[in-house]
This record gives sequence, C-alpha cells and structure tokens, in this order.
Amino acid sequence: MLMKSYLDMNKAELAQELSAVRGQYEALCAVPRKLDMSRGKPNPSQLDLSMPMLSLDPAGLSHTAGGADTRNYGQPTGIDECKALFAELLGVEPSNVIVGGQSSLNLMYDSVARALLLGVYGGKKPWGQQGQLKFLCPVPGYDRHFAVTAEFGFELVNIPMLPTGPDMALVKKYVESDPTVKGIWCVPKYSNPSGITYSDETVRAFAALKPAADDFRIFWDNAYCVHGFDDEDDELLNIFDACREQGSQDMVYEFASTSKITFGGAGVSVLVASENNIKHITRQMGVQTIGHDKINQMRHVQFLKNAAGVREHMKKHAAIVRPKFQCVLRALDEQIAPLGIAKWNRPHGGYFVAYEGLPGTASRCVALCKQAGLVLTPAGAPFPHGKDPQDNVIRIAPTFPDLPELEAAVELFCVAARLAALEKLSAEK
Amino acid sequence: MLMKSYLDMNKAELAQELSAVRGQYEALCAVPRKLDMSRGKPNPSQLDLSMPMLSLDPAGLSHTAGGADTRNYGQPTGIDECKALFAELLGVEPSNVIVGGQSSLNLMYDSVARALLLGVYGGKKPWGQQGQLKFLCPVPGYDRHFAVTAEFGFELVNIPMLPTGPDMALVKKYVESDPTVKGIWCVPKYSNPSGITYSDETVRAFAALKPAADDFRIFWDNAYCVHGFDDEDDELLNIFDACREQGSQDMVYEFASTSKITFGGAGVSVLVASENNIKHITRQMGVQTIGHDKINQMRHVQFLKNAAGVREHMKKHAAIVRPKFQCVLRALDEQIAPLGIAKWNRPHGGYFVAYEGLPGTASRCVALCKQAGLVLTPAGAPFPHGKDPQDNVIRIAPTFPDLPELEAAVELFCVAARLAALEKLSAEK
Repeated sequence: MLMKSYLDMNKAELAQELSAVRGQYEALCAVPRKLDMSRGKPNPSQLDLSMPMLSLDPAGLSHTAGGADTRNYGQPTGIDECKALFAELLGVEPSNVIVGGQSSLNLMYDSVARALLLGVYGGKKPWGQQGQLKFLCPVPGYDRHFAVTAEFGFELVNIPMLPTGPDMALVKKYVESDPTVKGIWCVPKYSNPSGITYSDETVRAFAALKPAADDFRIFWDNAYCVHGFDDEDDELLNIFDACREQGSQDMVYEFASTSKITFGGAGVSVLVASENNIKHITRQMGVQTIGHDKINQMRHVQFLKNAAGVREHMKKHAAIVRPKFQCVLRALDEQIAPLGIAKWNRPHGGYFVAYEGLPGTASRCVALCKQAGLVLTPAGAPFPHGKDPQDNVIRIAPTFPDLPELEAAVELFCVAARLAALEKLSAEK
Repeated sequence: MLMKSYLDMNKAELAQELSAVRGQYEALCAVPRKLDMSRGKPNPSQLDLSMPMLSLDPAGLSHTAGGADTRNYGQPTGIDECKALFAELLGVEPSNVIVGGQSSLNLMYDSVARALLLGVYGGKKPWGQQGQLKFLCPVPGYDRHFAVTAEFGFELVNIPMLPTGPDMALVKKYVESDPTVKGIWCVPKYSNPSGITYSDETVRAFAALKPAADDFRIFWDNAYCVHGFDDEDDELLNIFDACREQGSQDMVYEFASTSKITFGGAGVSVLVASENNIKHITRQMGVQTIGHDKINQMRHVQFLKNAAGVREHMKKHAAIVRPKFQCVLRALDEQIAPLGIAKWNRPHGGYFVAYEGLPGTASRCVALCKQAGLVLTPAGAPFPHGKDPQDNVIRIAPTFPDLPELEAAVELFCVAARLAALEKLSAEK
C-alpha cells in the first residue's frame, strides 16, 4: 500500500481517512484487551538469565578475598571486589566507587538530600540555606529524576535534547551565569527516553563548564552503560577522563546499577566520584547507614566476575530485547513513517523509543490507547511536573511485554496515533 | 580471698593496694596481646546459624504468594510476606510496616532527613524551617543515634536513664513545654548499653505525652526485640497498644531489623508506624527509591517463617551469647563487686553491659586497657558528642570475641578498672 502523507491531504481526503481509521480503531476497541507498554521493566525471561546468581555456593559468599566477613558489620562503602568490578566497567579506580543498595535512584535522591542538608565538597554552605534554587532538566528525560528535584522545591529548567545530547550552549549559559543553578540530570548513554548517547563534544563541554556556583554538580546517571542491543554499540566518552583534562572532576557524580543487568528487585548500585567527593560523602554516609548488603555484592561479583563477564551477560539480554525494538520500529516505519505525522529515534540500546507526534496529540493518543486496552506511560511524564509544553512526546517501553503482546500493542498504538493526528489535522483545516 | 572495699581503705592501705595492682597490670602489659571488646557485633558462630538462608531453593524466591516477581521492580514498601512476618513479631498490622534495606539506622536517618526537608504527617512545616531544634537523648545511649541528630545540628539534651527507662518526668517537661523539641531516641528493650527494658509505666507515659510541637516523634528503635538470652526474658509493652488508648499513634516511629537475627551485613529492616504516617512516608519514599531488595525479603521469610520461627532461631543465638555475658558478670562479681568502686547491669538480653565506675575514671580505664592491648569502646561514646559528664561509663560488648579471648579481656579489664579507681582514690586522700 502506498500511503500519502497526512500533511499533504486536503480536507476531503482527511475526512475520508479519518473515517476509515476511526473504523479501524473502533473495531480494535470491540475486542477487550489488556496490553501494557508503559514500563521500562525487564521481561521475566531477562530476569531468568540471572537465576544462577541465586544458586552460588554459600561458602564462597561469606568472606571477601581480603578476609572480611560479608555477613557481619563493616565495609560501609562496599567490598573491594565489587568496587573493582564497577571501576573496570566504568573506567575509574576502585577508590572512586561507593557501592549502595539495590536502587541507584536512592543514591541520587540521597545525594541531593545531603547536599541540601549538609552541603557538597567545596561548597560554602548547604544548598538548603541558599534560597530558591534551579536544577536543569534535559527534556524529554526520566520522570523520576525530575520528581526528586520537584519534591525538594527546585525550579526545574527544561533543556532541549539535541541529537548530540542536551543543548550545551543553553546549559553553559545557565550554569556559568546563575549561581542558583545547582545541578543537571543526565542519562548520557541511551538516554531515557530518547535513546540518544551524548557525543564526545557534549561530554567535553560538560567537563569544561565553569559553574557560577561553587557547589554545582552534574548527576550523570549512566543507567544504560552496558545496555546496547544492536550490532552497533554507542561509545560514550568517559566524563572523568574529560574532566581530568579540565581539573573539574569534583563537579561530577556518576551513578550506575545492575537493575537491568541482574535484578531490578535485588541489584546493586554505585556512586562514582572524585577522591574529594568520595571522602566527603563517605564521612556523611557513615552517619547515615551501617552499610549496604555485602552478600549481594559478593553474589554479583561471583556471577558477573568482571567487565568482560558483564558484557557477555548483556549479550543474552540483547538477544531478548533486540527483536522487541525491531518489532516497534518496523511497525512505526511501515504504518507511521509515510504519513509525515511523527518522528522517533532508532536507539542501539537502552529501554525506550521516544515517539514525537504532531503538537497537541500525545495525550489524546495515550487516552485513545487506554480506552482500547493499552496502557502507555502518561503523556507528559518525560517532562518536569508532567507537563510536555508541546504535548507531542510519548515514551514507548517495549521490553516488558512478550513479543505477541507487544505486536498487538504496537498495532493498536499505530492506529491510535493516526487517529489522533487525523483529528488534529481535520480540526485545523 | 576476702576483699575490702576500696572506699573503706585508709591512705596506707590504698597505697599498698595501688602498688600491688600496678604490679599486676604491668605483668599483664609485659605479654603482648590483641584483645577487643569494643564492638556490638555478632560472633561468626552466630552468623553461621543463618547460612542455610543462602542455600534456599531459588525457585521459591522469585515470586511472592500473591504472584509478584521479586526479581523485578515493584512493591517499593516491601513484599506482603515480609510485612506479615514483622507485623506478627511486633504486634501490629502488616499495613503498618514498611520494609527497608539492610540497615535500620538508614531508615532512622532518612526519617530525620525527610522530617527536616519535607516535614512529618500533621506538621505545619518541615523541621528544617523552624530554626534551632532539640532532640532528647536518654543517656547512656547509642552513639549512632546521637550522631544522626548531631550531624543535622540539633541541640542534644541528655535525659538520665533510670532502672525503669528514661526519666519520664524530665521527658514530659521538655516535650510538653518546648515546641523546639522534635524527637527522642529510645532503645526500649535491652537498651544499648544499659540493658534496661522500659517498664509498662514508662511506655504508657510515652504514649500519654502531649507534645508542644505538632510534629514531635518518638524514635522507638526496638533493635533487641527478640534478643533475650536468659531463661527470664523481659516483656516490653507494645507502644502502639498504649498509644491506641491515648489516640497518639501518629507520635511513634518504630524500627527493627534482622541485623542481629540473621546477618549484620545482609539483613532486612523495617519502619513501623500508624496508618497516617505510613501513607505519608510511602508517598515520600516513592520519590526516594525504586524499593529495597525483595529477594532478600523472601529469603528471610522462607528461612525464619514466622514469629515462632524467629524465637526458635534466637534460642540458638542465646546459647552462644549467654556464656559470654556470664563470663563478664562472673569476673565483675568476683573481682570488682567487693571493692565498692562500680556498678553494672545484669541484662537478660541485648548486646552490652554498661559498667559505671567512679566518676572521672572511665577514660583512664579505657586508656589503661588500650595500653595493655585491649580495645574498648571509647569512654564517652554512649553520650551525645562523646562527652560523658561524669566520665564513669564504659560500654562492654562481650559478643564478638570467642570465649577464651573474652576471658582474657575481662581479666585485663578488671585489673585496669581497679588501677584506675585506686589512682583516683589515692589522689583524693
């Protein structure tokens, strides 16, 4: 079928197409269904990949190579083996790593909370004693990042995402001129939800920032550092290497976790930072906690072994995830691309496709899907306070459903997206 | 040997005894030794008791009875089974329980941090926006409690511990007259370090408090709730039962953990509170974290099963811990009691003996021990800012050393305690 762009249709053609697509949509609605593309969650088959981690010999879990008893108190910043594993993976030294609990979001929230209450290394006073503050939010981005800084009353500043990463001219302007700008949220590789990996120039521009504030921090959430699923894998420049050239290492907090490597419900997280920051945070964390689960750290080390082991393991994830992204992209390519009503990314990794429709159609499309039995992430979710200024971005999460469910979901999505676009275009003519 | 009280000795007798005990001490110093009674840590043999928890069938860990996949995201406040286990143990409903990570201290710190930044249920504004605040600290108490509130700049107010618990007349006076008093640290059963269990009257007096502040909270750290080791076990009145009679349930945050039930390095912690508090905190925590390790929660449920299972398991701990406390108490009874220079508690549970010597001798005694190769908790540690106003309390932690090491340590301690007392008494005559 040769399809004509909706943008080129005249009023009559639009009316005819609207009638046809509405018919398709109503036919789909007639069959009850319960589909879900809302959640960036691993599929159970991905979790099965790590089940051997639960059968490791207990005798090998109880003590570190250095003789520390993982079952007892001690080593509040994590066991050496686990620091070494993440250090190799992220290209830093083990002394730059603090191992946390099962949620890296928790490490990020706590880093903001400590900065507010106690201050960061090199800062003259706690963030919380400096009046109204701003946090930069590249959009579309991760709703839970934005929620942390919204919770604490920051003014959230939208920064547009370009194909190379956040608009660095704008970032530089804010960071270098305004001392109330205290941080920026970044997902530098396979960004949530746009799938973009920051270019080397973008990473270098981050490292070269000269903040107006003496306590500005880049929150570098490297959540998808080893989560490529294509033959081609994006390369992200190591921000600490770039910072070393600028002497700006203290400006960065990097985060990562095994939530989408092993278990989202029983993983291990890390905070990576400069020696100065680590020393500062270690003292603060020593008041906060006795430490995190060291037996689970040992499990991860024994199961994943080293960076090569992680990459090997991630190939198994890729084999499960790749067909799902292909399924989504194939449907969009066939059913939406010719119509001129949307664009989307073609990520080599990560967990999301960011669908950008015509302005003013995202929430309508999500509502249409919901009515027909398909749950999507709420429109607006990837924006601070859930407000998409253009109302045109929809986050598609292909990983959790099984393939047949996903196929049905995408089919439905395409019809809803067409209908939303047609309603909008018809009303405008 | 019939020993005469040092308090009844004249100057010549003191001089002779001082010379004799100094000789004993110097003889002990002549033999190099490395002993440690400083840490309230389980002995490895206690940790061995829970090793079967690391060999559970993985198939039984991956899903809750309700079908939730413990390996994936979800259930941020914990799995139902784990809430039910702690609810039974602590005499509350599962809906009153939030399951945390491996450190209950972390839950307490976070509760203080959230109160400062966001406020508590029913409070008009965050603690952090109300100027200089006070926190009540029953002394001697747990150094890490005091450190949390010291970190955040609270004025820490010493409240003397009586044999029935904190001096409730003083607590009532502070709490009911001063709206800047925002909380109190309590270890209500087998208190750290005095081993005291609060009397029913004390618990009822807590429940009956009418705080001047609308956002006052009792931090009820029930760390040793099932940690009796004697035939006789102390009974602690359930504070929520007492509060229900007063309609004051919202005033209490209770904490507990399995750190000294299963593993100090891989346990599970809980926060227990009223429906109003749980609802309030659940929303706040939803911004903070994706949730805690649910597979470890399943492990604990399958291993411990229910409250009866926990109590059965704790009998095995008791069999290891009891002889160690007997060893310490026997030595103190034989070598110190007749001398009139100290008193101490005889706890039925918990992890500590609090030794109260003559005023001005605790730090000297700890220094003498250190010089002879025995590490003790620093004198002053059980007091806010590490300052024991009388310099007479020493926390003895008998659990971590093996029995032969403990015997040698206590022997040395008694000689050092006598020497410190004799030096003091001699100087005063």
